[in-house]
Amino acid sequence: MSSSGKATVGATVVTVGDELLLGQTVDTNAAWLGRELASRGVRVLRRWTVADDTQEIRSAVAAATRDADLVVVTGGLGPTPDDMTRDVVAELLGLPLIEDHDVLDRIRARYHEAGMGKPPESTRRLAQVPKGARKLTNPHGTAPGLAMEAEGGALVVLLPGIPRELRGIFLGDLDALLSHRFGSRLPPVHLHLVHTTGIPESRLAQRVAEKLPDGAAPASLAFLPDVRGVDLRFTMHGLSEADAEDHVRVLEDTLREVLEPWRFEAGSGDLAEAVAAALRMRGKLLAVAESCTGGLVMKRLTDVPGASDVLVGGVVAYANEVKAGVLGVDAVVLAREGAVSEAVARGMALEVAHSLHADAGIGVTGVAGPGGGTDAKPVGTVWYAAALDGRSVTKMERFPGDRESVRERAGQAALFLLLRLLDGRISPDD
Amino acid sequence: MSSSGKATVGATVVTVGDELLLGQTVDTNAAWLGRELASRGVRVLRRWTVADDTQEIRSAVAAATRDADLVVVTGGLGPTPDDMTRDVVAELLGLPLIEDHDVLDRIRARYHEAGMGKPPESTRRLAQVPKGARKLTNPHGTAPGLAMEAEGGALVVLLPGIPRELRGIFLGDLDALLSHRFGSRLPPVHLHLVHTTGIPESRLAQRVAEKLPDGAAPASLAFLPDVRGVDLRFTMHGLSEADAEDHVRVLEDTLREVLEPWRFEAGSGDLAEAVAAALRMRGKLLAVAESCTGGLVMKRLTDVPGASDVLVGGVVAYANEVKAGVLGVDAVVLAREGAVSEAVARGMALEVAHSLHADAGIGVTGVAGPGGGTDAKPVGTVWYAAALDGRSVTKMERFPGDRESVRERAGQAALFLLLRLLDGRISPDD
Repeated sequence: MSSSGKATVGATVVTVGDELLLGQTVDTNAAWLGRELASRGVRVLRRWTVADDTQEIRSAVAAATRDADLVVVTGGLGPTPDDMTRDVVAELLGLPLIEDHDVLDRIRARYHEAGMGKPPESTRRLAQVPKGARKLTNPHGTAPGLAMEAEGGALVVLLPGIPRELRGIFLGDLDALLSHRFGSRLPPVHLHLVHTTGIPESRLAQRVAEKLPDGAAPASLAFLPDVRGVDLRFTMHGLSEADAEDHVRVLEDTLREVLEPWRFEAGSGDLAEAVAAALRMRGKLLAVAESCTGGLVMKRLTDVPGASDVLVGGVVAYANEVKAGVLGVDAVVLAREGAVSEAVARGMALEVAHSLHADAGIGVTGVAGPGGGTDAKPVGTVWYAAALDGRSVTKMERFPGDRESVRERAGQAALFLLLRLLDGRISPDD
Repeated sequence: MSSSGKATVGATVVTVGDELLLGQTVDTNAAWLGRELASRGVRVLRRWTVADDTQEIRSAVAAATRDADLVVVTGGLGPTPDDMTRDVVAELLGLPLIEDHDVLDRIRARYHEAGMGKPPESTRRLAQVPKGARKLTNPHGTAPGLAMEAEGGALVVLLPGIPRELRGIFLGDLDALLSHRFGSRLPPVHLHLVHTTGIPESRLAQRVAEKLPDGAAPASLAFLPDVRGVDLRFTMHGLSEADAEDHVRVLEDTLREVLEPWRFEAGSGDLAEAVAAALRMRGKLLAVAESCTGGLVMKRLTDVPGASDVLVGGVVAYANEVKAGVLGVDAVVLAREGAVSEAVARGMALEVAHSLHADAGIGVTGVAGPGGGTDAKPVGTVWYAAALDGRSVTKMERFPGDRESVRERAGQAALFLLLRLLDGRISPDD
């Protein structure tokens, strides 16, 4: 396992807290630590979450020190009785606890500055430092981080569970300690993300594999699917900036044809950001008319900061009267073809753009379920349209899954249709 | 350790995925599983997150089966080469993989329904089932969950990492399997949830503590805060149905006065469900006009199945032209008082209800940020209004946090204002 080989630095993260196991708190520290460590070339081998229990903490940390170079333990450094990490780890490493006067003074000062008077007796526990441990300054709190050597040579680091304090210590003293301690062994890591939508993971993986047989890639590839699409993540270890860029170029050339119909560019990974950027670049204004997605498309667009530059607004036409009344969709067409039809989707996209004085329009109408399905138009049937400068393109799909899934997929498909119309990947069909 | 003693059922959760260790995905499954298992009386002893690595998965699952009664493994069941959980666990438990024709048929059917034609070859992996494993139906996907016996007698359960699929399997077949398998050893756990919004956790906790001093409660109390509000969860262990109900009555009597201004009832915990129910009960139709929330309020309402009975639709008036044009908000008022003002919020709520022939209306206008703030109207300033039968109530708040937080809080506040207007907790101010 690479943690024992000294090529790379292997880390185990131990997060402590009943509230994590009970699911009362989502462990965002673990994700943050993972990103920060990975971006420094530290390989996170595994993450253990354990209860506020002496025995559980001890066995986790003991096991971690056996095969990791770096053990990061978060949580359980506070002043309350269920904060036992400091004591357990000090005892495990055979280091006596000594009251640290600098820390005590620091605590007194902070209480004084905050006008809270004399610190409660319980805060004395925060000043207990294992003999020989290195204190890591906590810019946002009273309990310092602690760094100690384990017998096998692993570096054991204790950090408070409060995210702001953990991050402050990591980005300050710990960062310096890590590069001083492991610098020569920390390979640069380069990630290359490609966002796709509209193609199932299995089919995408198959097409990629045809171009990029196993092992042929100069980088390890992972597929990250969710209901909105599939991201490809290429990871490259130990390359120079230049070599990594070369590899990315090769990958992009190899896969261009396969990915072109499905990909989009967005720093946040959100297609709505790509649509907003495309509208801004072309100086186009957008209006949206939604039925089954009921505001989802506009909500996603307005999640993007600065959306007001490109989105004038829109209409949620849930009742047919609104489709006819506000949107002016031809009532005869509505009656003849039904609300879920090509004509209505197109009408919604064109009319909303026209009546709100926008250049571009989106129209979505469908059967999200659970009710409302028919043999001709079962649950999941969605007609959606994108309009640009008075011309439009319309599509129909049967989306799988429950109501939420159908709505998510329909909104994503409508946004992607507009994006492709904006960047010329497809042309209007009328 | 309680997992070996047969008194309680001890579980270890193993989540698999490089993206979890790299922090590209926050492990929400682990938190959700923790809550669901705890609420059924299963004690989650520890949680391990490991890489997409044969060796790592094998050693984690092997160690878990040694001292847990239940081992839940999530992730790595997909069709791509980096999905290896199924193969590793089958090999570890000495069970040969057999292609399951029911699963194959199900996959073909789903592809056919979705109009995606023949499933790619890679999906065959999803149909590989360890000999003798029990299949757990996946209502939202193709890969079934799998349940197997380990040598020591532990129950090993494999679930897909996609949250909707994992939850669907858990709440269906797995739930039944757990009570059948461990029923006698699962202490009855009764939960009583109270949903509140509009009051900070610290203040709520303080008021509750005044009525319910520590230990006085016949149940353990947890506060579960998020950006939309604070839930109170009372947990009662080992009580009969009748005793639990008595305890709940006592709790409700004790806290009625404290909670009344802030609480709402919704099975899903979503305020939008409570609003839809209140509208339905009173036979009222709703229309919504949103500016800074940009569709969020309507999106939440239409997330509720059957929303079409009570929501006719609405308008997202992002640009002032739309506020004036479509909504007919007085342009003079807009110019004089600005888009973020009491008059505009009230006008939006009344006008949208009027023009869409609805009984009730919601209007929200504010500065979500990051830009757009002024000294008079800093980021977070939101005016919102609720209208019913031509009369309205309007409020202004300065919401803390970033853009997303301001939007979430504003949408929640507007929905809660309408709910209280509907159920008579407040009266119109004009």
